Amino acid sequence: MLPELQAVLGDRLDVSPATLESVRSDRSGYASAGTPLGVVHAETVADVQATLRWASTHGVPVVTRGAGTGLAGAATAGPGEIVLSTARMTRVLEINDTDLLAVVEPGIINADLNDILAEHGLWFAPDPASRAISTVGGNIATNAGGLLCAKYGVTREAVLALDVVLADGSLISLGHRSIKGVTGLDLTALMVGSEGLLGVIVGATVRLRRSVPGELHTIAAYFPSVTAAAEASVAIGRAGLTPAIMELLDATCLATVHAHLGRPTPPLGQSQLVLRTDGPDAREAAERALVILREHGGIAELAATAQEGEDLLVVRRAMHPSLETLGYPLIEDVSVPRSRLAEMFVAIEEVSARFGIPIPTLAHAGDGNLHPNLIVDGPEVPERVWEAAHALFQACLALGGTLSGEHGIGVLKQRWLAEELGDTQHELQRRIKLAFDPQSILNPGKVFSR
Amino acid sequence: MLPELQAVLGDRLDVSPATLESVRSDRSGYASAGTPLGVVHAETVADVQATLRWASTHGVPVVTRGAGTGLAGAATAGPGEIVLSTARMTRVLEINDTDLLAVVEPGIINADLNDILAEHGLWFAPDPASRAISTVGGNIATNAGGLLCAKYGVTREAVLALDVVLADGSLISLGHRSIKGVTGLDLTALMVGSEGLLGVIVGATVRLRRSVPGELHTIAAYFPSVTAAAEASVAIGRAGLTPAIMELLDATCLATVHAHLGRPTPPLGQSQLVLRTDGPDAREAAERALVILREHGGIAELAATAQEGEDLLVVRRAMHPSLETLGYPLIEDVSVPRSRLAEMFVAIEEVSARFGIPIPTLAHAGDGNLHPNLIVDGPEVPERVWEAAHALFQACLALGGTLSGEHGIGVLKQRWLAEELGDTQHELQRRIKLAFDPQSILNPGKVFSR
Repeated sequence: MLPELQAVLGDRLDVSPATLESVRSDRSGYASAGTPLGVVHAETVADVQATLRWASTHGVPVVTRGAGTGLAGAATAGPGEIVLSTARMTRVLEINDTDLLAVVEPGIINADLNDILAEHGLWFAPDPASRAISTVGGNIATNAGGLLCAKYGVTREAVLALDVVLADGSLISLGHRSIKGVTGLDLTALMVGSEGLLGVIVGATVRLRRSVPGELHTIAAYFPSVTAAAEASVAIGRAGLTPAIMELLDATCLATVHAHLGRPTPPLGQSQLVLRTDGPDAREAAERALVILREHGGIAELAATAQEGEDLLVVRRAMHPSLETLGYPLIEDVSVPRSRLAEMFVAIEEVSARFGIPIPTLAHAGDGNLHPNLIVDGPEVPERVWEAAHALFQACLALGGTLSGEHGIGVLKQRWLAEELGDTQHELQRRIKLAFDPQSILNPGKVFSR
Repeated sequence: MLPELQAVLGDRLDVSPATLESVRSDRSGYASAGTPLGVVHAETVADVQATLRWASTHGVPVVTRGAGTGLAGAATAGPGEIVLSTARMTRVLEINDTDLLAVVEPGIINADLNDILAEHGLWFAPDPASRAISTVGGNIATNAGGLLCAKYGVTREAVLALDVVLADGSLISLGHRSIKGVTGLDLTALMVGSEGLLGVIVGATVRLRRSVPGELHTIAAYFPSVTAAAEASVAIGRAGLTPAIMELLDATCLATVHAHLGRPTPPLGQSQLVLRTDGPDAREAAERALVILREHGGIAELAATAQEGEDLLVVRRAMHPSLETLGYPLIEDVSVPRSRLAEMFVAIEEVSARFGIPIPTLAHAGDGNLHPNLIVDGPEVPERVWEAAHALFQACLALGGTLSGEHGIGVLKQRWLAEELGDTQHELQRRIKLAFDPQSILNPGKVFSR
């Protein structure tokens, strides 16, 4: 049956061993049991439709993939599956600086889109740490978060409309170009974060913002404990301040990334909170933040120059690669209400001690999303580490949190999904999936528990 | 079978003729063919569950209703149906000023919630013109818009989590207390704006904002034509200003509301743009707006006092009742990309002239949502008026717009829904409805085309 697809797609159907091997895994390190049938490098909507018509005719499972930067295994493919890559669909079809929207193909890299937009004084707000390497389509399919969400929202809030190819190859247009629109069920919002289960995003109308005028002010504050840093971040929020960025690195993270970057070692045991303020009251907000941070025991300084401020965020953005110097990091992604942030750090320390696993943790403190990194010897995660992860999830749920803030379920968290959703909702979600994809050929075996 | 329900609910099942008559219609003036079986005044989640278990056992259609302030007929009920009112479920279960959320029952009136929140320096942003009389549950079920959406978002962005009773009486919890969360499909977002088709909202965790500090500045600007006013509003946006409120009243609206309020008549033929700025740069933004409005031919003045500013919005908020002095207003709700606002006004004038129907129009100019009011003799809308409405929708769709910005589909717009969605999406939406409600007892005959 593969020759039939090849007849339509020519060399856009790639069966080279290296390619097939590369799509077994994503940035999580998880790898499927073996290589898939092939990888379609779709260049047009018609390519996507042809692939899905072929797949639905033959009952072949389809794994949609962008840049493969996911951290939950959702875009990984195994034996018998076909990978549908939209990475070559990178065109920007429209930029409208009156309606503040852009129409793009899914494969464009987030940072590339933002480089283009910057020339127009515009900006696509979703800002995952992967923005230099992840696609806008992937950002949408995972409802990507990032550093700016407390102030500027998650990806869902930046998506106005989507063109979607359904499992049978039909093309539908969801949503509106207008800010408001309530015609029927909000399938645009439902597609955001659906991890390839419902359809293939082949076009997106995204909401833009005008570049925020004025200077950015960046603060680094050091605390003797991670809980003190967490409590200071909560106090910032309670004072009515909404920094654009508020990132927390625990002592291990901070020491590791400094070593990785070859910078002077920070004082032993210090955790760091990095804040950035923007907008018309950026300076005043930064001055107020300094006072609050110091009142909470922090040694806090405002970056003297824009360069120095950028430099502080270079540290944060280098976090993931630097952790790989410690071993293999299983990156978790729990999210709690902001008020419970310090308690979640305590729970992580307890789990780390109980299981004897180092768990350096960083957090988007502004929105309560933590990334505990369980350090393992290699990509084969021992069951004991999953037990530690389970303990983290239990603690998180008990604090009113959720087991994934921004990475999604994929394969790595599916065994816990039903526990959070409840069986009734879990079954309802499966029925909705079947309403889109009655043959269940779209990313089967992902997200839902088996 | 009704006695069976009465045995469970006692006098919370209301079959008085006056009550049954009242739920045949909503604020749109549409009335169903006759009175329903009864009205359940649910006081608890258990009441809602009991009603749905009874309804699913007997196959009785259920129409969920809040305050009945809808403008599309979605909450109207007819023969053979049972009305499930959540208007008595008005408790505020939690206000959390660290996590910036409140947990409420669905029947609380929007303004009542905001009065309570104001004591805490907090605020629930959705601000439909009906806020003094509409419920939070109704706001969510219709994804209510209002005056503040361009700056502060639609209702969907203010809903974190929902408790929902499904058609069979089972209770599920959707969403998260945290800002981020991507565990499974985003059913919370799907419920928002679902007009009673999918389940009954019995609890909501809503996102709050801190009250915006500082003064509000309000501007009234008068223009010789409605298109000049529309173009000035677009120029405001293009200059990078985002007023909290930017409302446009055409000449007929302006004259009518002034007469209704017994105020001096404004200059003949003048349209009015009312802007309000807020936040740390409110004054500077207002000064810049004044310059832009005058450059675009407006006679613009900044309100000298807060009272004078409030007074300008009193005029706007009195708009709907004042139009009733002209006849029976069929309130339409089209929404276009902001850049097409002036063109939509031209199209409305053309339709008005062609059909000989007065169509005074107001608009949320900041977000491109227009309310053309087709003035009819009485609530029985003649087919010719629907033809005029059809012409408006055609014009709106041609401009890249949508046939409902914030009122929804209900019964009044369902004949046009498939045209906007396309047949494939329309069928998909029906299948999703059936995934929630296999017997189709929840608000059958609404939203989807027959």
